[in-house]
Amino acid sequence: MPAQLTELKRPTNTQSAQGSYKINGSRLVQFLDEMASIGAQPDGSVSRRGFSETDILGRKRMAEWMRQSGLAVRIDPAGNLIGRLEGSDAGLPALMTGSHLDTVPTGGRFDGVLGVLAGLEVAMTLQDLGLKLRHTLEVVVFADEESTMIGCKGMAGTASSDPAEFVTSSRTPIQTNLEKLGGQWSELPSARRSDGAIAAFLELHVEQGAVLQSRHDVIGVVDGVVGQRRFTITIEGQANHAGTTPMSARCDALAAAAQVILGVQTMALNHPGDPVATVGRIQIAPNAANVVPGSAELTVDVRDLDPGVLDELTETLMNLLERIGETSGCAISLDPQFKVEPTPAHRTVQMAIRASAEALGLPTSDLPSRASHDAQEMGRRWPMGMIFVPSRDGLSHSAKEFTEPDHCIDGTNVLLNSLLRLDRAL
Amino acid sequence: MPAQLTELKRPTNTQSAQGSYKINGSRLVQFLDEMASIGAQPDGSVSRRGFSETDILGRKRMAEWMRQSGLAVRIDPAGNLIGRLEGSDAGLPALMTGSHLDTVPTGGRFDGVLGVLAGLEVAMTLQDLGLKLRHTLEVVVFADEESTMIGCKGMAGTASSDPAEFVTSSRTPIQTNLEKLGGQWSELPSARRSDGAIAAFLELHVEQGAVLQSRHDVIGVVDGVVGQRRFTITIEGQANHAGTTPMSARCDALAAAAQVILGVQTMALNHPGDPVATVGRIQIAPNAANVVPGSAELTVDVRDLDPGVLDELTETLMNLLERIGETSGCAISLDPQFKVEPTPAHRTVQMAIRASAEALGLPTSDLPSRASHDAQEMGRRWPMGMIFVPSRDGLSHSAKEFTEPDHCIDGTNVLLNSLLRLDRAL
Repeated sequence: MPAQLTELKRPTNTQSAQGSYKINGSRLVQFLDEMASIGAQPDGSVSRRGFSETDILGRKRMAEWMRQSGLAVRIDPAGNLIGRLEGSDAGLPALMTGSHLDTVPTGGRFDGVLGVLAGLEVAMTLQDLGLKLRHTLEVVVFADEESTMIGCKGMAGTASSDPAEFVTSSRTPIQTNLEKLGGQWSELPSARRSDGAIAAFLELHVEQGAVLQSRHDVIGVVDGVVGQRRFTITIEGQANHAGTTPMSARCDALAAAAQVILGVQTMALNHPGDPVATVGRIQIAPNAANVVPGSAELTVDVRDLDPGVLDELTETLMNLLERIGETSGCAISLDPQFKVEPTPAHRTVQMAIRASAEALGLPTSDLPSRASHDAQEMGRRWPMGMIFVPSRDGLSHSAKEFTEPDHCIDGTNVLLNSLLRLDRAL
Repeated sequence: MPAQLTELKRPTNTQSAQGSYKINGSRLVQFLDEMASIGAQPDGSVSRRGFSETDILGRKRMAEWMRQSGLAVRIDPAGNLIGRLEGSDAGLPALMTGSHLDTVPTGGRFDGVLGVLAGLEVAMTLQDLGLKLRHTLEVVVFADEESTMIGCKGMAGTASSDPAEFVTSSRTPIQTNLEKLGGQWSELPSARRSDGAIAAFLELHVEQGAVLQSRHDVIGVVDGVVGQRRFTITIEGQANHAGTTPMSARCDALAAAAQVILGVQTMALNHPGDPVATVGRIQIAPNAANVVPGSAELTVDVRDLDPGVLDELTETLMNLLERIGETSGCAISLDPQFKVEPTPAHRTVQMAIRASAEALGLPTSDLPSRASHDAQEMGRRWPMGMIFVPSRDGLSHSAKEFTEPDHCIDGTNVLLNSLLRLDRAL
């Protein structure tokens, strides 16, 4: 632990009038600054891709901090770095919190990192204040959230047994990657925790959207992580000379694709709920200015918290494609790429979060998480809750990602008090 | 000249009952087969890109055939290969016919080639039949029609004096390329022919569209080569997380592009004339399935025979972009890439073509040429006419390009008789 952090070891944790406890805010901010320096890029972004040198360095630093904070540290076969603070009742399951330290290639300073360091700060605060939980507290750095999600899937037992499904963009086999982190692919099944091992899982995370900012709220009480359907759409038209082919004789794959793109946008906009649907990728051939496009391939990504809405939108999409196929004369096919079921948050955990925020005087909003998180896999097995704090302008996965230091502290205070409430209630 | 061709030297040219002359059809077909073997690809296409080894080989073969057919052969500074058959009246300007031998990377057997070999066949037939024209006949292989059009532009004096405008996709300077063909960039101005040097220019070409096929006509009397406007459109939206960004908060560059694509299609379809408008190329960024597209770049290509229609469609396009910019919230800009003015065919030449076809009992259609041709530049200076023959299913620039041998022969007969008519009339 750096000298400055040590100095901050016994600081300004307080108990507020309403019975809420508070973490050491400056220490948390210092942890955030320290971690952001590992993999810092000239443009202000942070690069700690899962299994990379900088990822390993970040995890090592974290493990030191955990140890110096009195946590028992281990790495499970799924590569998860776990710090453990024993509770007073050995018979109770663990309360768990955590997130990830790995980033996208040009990641921000807060995505994942905040949840991990908040867990560390909570464990330190509990000790600073001499508060002993009944449940053991586990603070987890999940392995490679941004790409394979091998860590949370390994712990939740939702990982495929096919190593090919976890190959990263660098083409490195997952076996090699896990060993870099101290994990072990062949032992993955033993990373799976039993049903009775975890009382609840909480994750503090930056929103990565602009809902809280637009509502002027500070704490998001997540009602679940949305499910996702991903499709590839292939459109076969007829490539032809852009001069000599009359408009009426064309079978223009890009014009058909344009109808799909607008149809996808409209189906989400017109839905009474608030699903999102995106065409993010398109490739056409031959992609030449003087040739009527002969073929197009595009992706459609649909997300919502309600599996019924996902099914309904899939149906709408299929009807849309059939209609466009008929009128455009192009052959259109839909290939499902993957399907992630929504994970609802647990009512008891949500109530603990809401009550903690209210006691701290922080305005809250209920909202879904529309991005994937480790909590999404953990919530398939154990009671789950997520705390969101505002992302400036909703930006994330970029150098521009920013969350006010005060909001980082507010979120961590909510995490601390939620864990204390759950410790009493569960 | 191959043995078989020599055997065919004095063959079945005939004069029909209606006073029409006919070429030697089997000889023409054999020339076409011979030329298709130079640069023949395994997939059935032909590759003789301008200035390539195969292009040079094809031109050498052609020069031999010209010489063996009694033409005086020369190469002008623009790389045009010119075969000359002296007329009886040295005071008259030349009648000229020709096209190109160079192809796109996977070209067909007929595009360009037919017009060149038809010219040769016509010169041979005239000699076979002992017909001496008053005008000198020039048969021209124009240099690099498919890419730089340096040949026809050099002869018409419409070439830019900036060599950078003629750099090919291989990045070879035009100076080097012209020398490969026996031309000379520094002498280009002297390739320009004087106003009084050419009485008329005729080009026989495959239609590269399906109008003649659909009308069951054999001879297309071209009323002009369409003009063209090419634009690049740039759309700047906001790249954002495809999960966390609500539909209403998006600035989706691809959705705006889709509106442009459909708007461009609609403006051409709804026009009372028959212009064509094409979005043939699109690139988006970051082009990832889970990111709302932040930017898009697309091309718009508009063609019509009437310059007024081109101006009108440009105006419509600008209004369309303004409207889409306002409603989508994206910043949209339009950059003109180039502008080619239409070239109308000359009435006298059209009449000679129509009358010749009718005398041969061949059904004709008037139609514009929607592709570029050497005739487009030649027609800016001298009376121009084009003869089209049907392309099966309108396909061109591909191994599937096909024109019935009988239609090749019909078109060449029309060329022969049109030149005879013009020789009398001009």
